[in-house]
This record gives sequence, structure tokens and C-alpha cells, in this order.
Amino acid sequence: MFYLLDIIGTMAFALSGALTAMNKRLDPFGILIIAFVTAVGGGTLRDVLIGKTPVGWMLNLNYVYVIFIGYILAILFRKRFDKLRKSLFLFDTIGLGVFTLIGLEKGISIGLHPIICTALGTMTACFGGVIRDILCNEIPVIFRKEIYATICILGGIVFFMLKKGNFPDELIQLVTSLVIIIVRLLVVKFNWSLPTFDLKLK
Amino acid sequence: MFYLLDIIGTMAFALSGALTAMNKRLDPFGILIIAFVTAVGGGTLRDVLIGKTPVGWMLNLNYVYVIFIGYILAILFRKRFDKLRKSLFLFDTIGLGVFTLIGLEKGISIGLHPIICTALGTMTACFGGVIRDILCNEIPVIFRKEIYATICILGGIVFFMLKKGNFPDELIQLVTSLVIIIVRLLVVKFNWSLPTFDLKLK
Amino acid sequence: MFYLLDIIGTMAFALSGALTAMNKRLDPFGILIIAFVTAVGGGTLRDVLIGKTPVGWMLNLNYVYVIFIGYILAILFRKRFDKLRKSLFLFDTIGLGVFTLIGLEKGISIGLHPIICTALGTMTACFGGVIRDILCNEIPVIFRKEIYATICILGGIVFFMLKKGNFPDELIQLVTSLVIIIVRLLVVKFNWSLPTFDLKLK
Repeated sequence: MFYLLDIIGTMAFALSGALTAMNKRLDPFGILIIAFVTAVGGGTLRDVLIGKTPVGWMLNLNYVYVIFIGYILAILFRKRFDKLRKSLFLFDTIGLGVFTLIGLEKGISIGLHPIICTALGTMTACFGGVIRDILCNEIPVIFRKEIYATICILGGIVFFMLKKGNFPDELIQLVTSLVIIIVRLLVVKFNWSLPTFDLKLK
Repeated sequence: MFYLLDIIGTMAFALSGALTAMNKRLDPFGILIIAFVTAVGGGTLRDVLIGKTPVGWMLNLNYVYVIFIGYILAILFRKRFDKLRKSLFLFDTIGLGVFTLIGLEKGISIGLHPIICTALGTMTACFGGVIRDILCNEIPVIFRKEIYATICILGGIVFFMLKKGNFPDELIQLVTSLVIIIVRLLVVKFNWSLPTFDLKLK
Repeated sequence: MFYLLDIIGTMAFALSGALTAMNKRLDPFGILIIAFVTAVGGGTLRDVLIGKTPVGWMLNLNYVYVIFIGYILAILFRKRFDKLRKSLFLFDTIGLGVFTLIGLEKGISIGLHPIICTALGTMTACFGGVIRDILCNEIPVIFRKEIYATICILGGIVFFMLKKGNFPDELIQLVTSLVIIIVRLLVVKFNWSLPTFDLKLK
């Protein structure tokens, strides 16, 4: 079940990367790389920083196949994704929840502090998009307007509060990902955003 | 022989990096970093992702010396490189072939799947230029117009088809790099490019 | 004492990152990430390239706390930092000296060549700012106008000349960081800069 959700999230991230890349008029190789990086960039950065190498996707080719299928689908059905935007958004949100959990668990498995685990969860879920934006020569969107990464941090807090309460692992995972997914849906529905601060340095 | 070609490729990549950096009006330190990153960035990324650290150029200073010489030459003879463009292009193409091979062999040496080895070969040959473009605040040129990375993928396919045929290693290496070099020359001669896809997301 | 200077440098880098991010009108999450990356990005890159993982800040949470305090201070007192610019610049310069030393020592501790150690020192001190600029979609400032990284290279040269002279370690560290700090102060006072080279590629 969890594995299936991981696949759905990977596919959704690959699709969103490929669509961004086509929107920037990149060529097929560029689209492939952006789809790939969006889907596995966060986990790759996490693996490199904790020293788990070769990084995940080099050892489990399922990710590669899923991304490749997403890439092909994105190119073939590029005109129709506008209509599918709602489903895509739902899948992306599932990815957010699942990827955060995966990052949290990786951190715990090597004995890191809850703060660092939360950073790893956020990184896993959000930094594929950051690398995508850098490669497309944009300031990363999650630094600017959307409440996105902050939800992963919230998820980490919920996760470790439940851990303290000694709840069973599966329940903790379920609640954490549901919190992330529901808050994300609320954020988008009500168009919430974080404040920015006025500051013009001379 | 192979080692000499590696040196030629490194030098060519360092020169191309230094010229790009001067064109962007960077200062001497910026030019040095861009020359360096263009020459060894792809191999460094590969080493980090497969966990072969300290990365290559930290243990073999010959790369450092070659890049430094390229850097000095690029600054001294910057007005004349226009006339040398054809030789430079040839050296760069040699680099493309050799670096792809090095990446392929590294992947095989740690038992990775052919698809991943091909990704490592492409990364070794092309991602120095990607990092160069990001540092210079451009969308990487190989994502936009030139058929460049795709040739490395083609090289990987040829390489593993020959492997299946049990040909001797040296022959495989020779044929793979020649295929890459010749296709690259043809691409530039006939000005081939990949299609892009129309898509304007609203 | 050395440890205190490390903390001061980290705080100064976090503040400078946060101010840059507010100036770019990023949201609170973006500001946090930029503060974080500016403070520990150089050391993180160094650790990844030499294979010392999990990287430093994952194992020593003091960095995380210092950065977080810097982040909060930057947001609260954002209107007053103009007046504090001189103190901030001094702290930043202390950071430059201390971080260069830390990078040099790390390289020596794993037996790398002096040239590579100098590169690691420069990377530790300067590449947090490089990553900050890339995330903010700018060509890194140290590649363009300021004499900054070059001073770290100079520091490395002084360091290894003193090492050859068999001076005691503490003296070497003191002199090296003082050289870096004093030269940096002179550079800014007299507004020195490196030349750029005219080159317009057609």
C-alpha cells in the first residue's frame, strides 16, 4: 500500500516536472532530466547528505521506469493535462505526504535528531521541485509563495509528538501523511499564504 | 593513449568554461571556478552520487594542473580563440566521447544496471556544462537546443549492445567513443536538433 | 575561543543570508532555507565531496540553533540592520577567516594535498554564499566583483608556508586567520577589485 503511494507520488512529481519543462520549451532531453530531477531530486539530495550511496534510484530501477512512463505520458497527453489538473494536484499531494514520511524514517533509521529528521522529510518532499526551479532558472516557487514545505515541517512535528505517545508505527505514519495531505488541500482551497517582510536594503 | 585523450578532453572543457565565464565578464576567480566546474563537474557529481569520495580530482592533481593551464591559456589568448574555434570544437568532442566512456566504466565497476551506467556516462560528459550554465544564471544549453547529451545515451546503447556480443573491451571502447564523436560531428555539420513541444500552461 | 569564533561566523552568515532573502521578498520558509544554506552550505559541500557524511550540521545541532536564532533576529530587527552594517561586516569577516581554517584543517586531517586543502578552505568559507546566490537566481557575487575568495586562497598559501617553517599549530592558525581578516578589511576599505577581461564572443 505504502509502496503503491510512493509510486503514485513519483509519477505525479515526474509529470509535474515534465509539464514545467515543456512550458519552458525545453527539448526532449531537457524534459526528461527535469522530470527525473523533480521526482527523485529530493531523495537524492537526502541520500547524498546522509551518505547513503549509491543513491536510491541507482539501486531500484522501478523509480526510473515510473519516471520514464510519466515522461512519455506527459509528452503524449500534454494538451489534456489542463483538464486533469485536479487529479494531478491530488497525486502531487499524496507524494508530498509519502515522501515526507520516507525522509523522516530514513533519518530515524540512522539515529539522527528529530529536528534533522524533519529537515530530511521536508527535503525529500520539496527539494526535487527546488532543483527543478533552479535548472529552469527560476527562484524556487516554494521559497516565494506557496505554503508547501511548511506543511512537511508540521508533519514532522505531528510525527514526533505521536512517537512520544508510543502509538503504533502504522498509526503514526497514517496520521502524519493524512495531516500533511489534508492541510495541503485546505491551504490550496482557501488560498492561504505566508506573509513576506518589507525590506528594501539600500 | 586513453589517458592522453582524457587530458585533452579536460583541457577542452576547461577552455570552454573559461571562455564562457569571460564572456559573462566574471572576475579571474569566477573564471577559474567556471573553468574548473565545467571540466570536472560532471565527474564530481557522478562520484558523489555513487559514493566514491574524496572525489576524483582531489586525489589526482593532474586534473587540477591541466585545468589551471587551460585557464591561463584562455586568459592569455582570449582574443584568438575565435580563430581556433574549430580545433576547440574537435577537442570538446573528444572529451564528450572519452568522458562518457569513463562514466560507463565506473558504473560497471560497481555493478550497476546498464541504464544507470548510461546515465552515469551522460552525467560525466554533460553535467559539467550544466553546472557551468547554472552558475552563469542560464537555463542549461543542453536542455534547450543542442543534441549533445542524447548522443551520450546513444553511446551507452552501442556500448552495451557490443558488451552483449562479447567483443573485446578495447574494441568496445574504441567503437563507442568513435560513434559518439562521429555523430556529434554530423549533428553540428548538418545542424540537427530535437523537436520541442508546444505547450502554454495557463 | 576558536569555537566561539565559529559560532560568531555562523551567526553572521545566517544573518546575511536572511537579509538577502528578505530583500528578494521570499516567504518565511524561503528566508530560513537561505539563512541556513548561506551559513552551512560551504561546509556541507566540502563534507559531501570528501565523503564525511552525515554532514556536519546533522550531527552537531548547535549550528542549527545558532542559525535559527540568527533567522529570528534578522526578521525581528530587519529595519535596524542598516545601522548595524559595520558590526555585521566585521562578524562576516571573522567567519571568513575561521571557516577557511576549518576547511584547511579538514583537508589535512584526511591527508589531502595542500592545493586541495586550500580549495576546501575556500569552499568552506565562500560556497555558502554561492549557493545562496544561485537559489536567489543571481550570478554568484564572488565570481563578479568582490575580492573575497581570493583572500581565502591567500590564507591557504600563508598557512602552508608557515607549516613548512614548523611553527606551532596555534600560531599558524592565528596568523592565517588574521591575514585573511586584515586583507579583507583592507580590500573593503580601499575598494580594491580584480580586473575583468574584455571578450565578446560572437
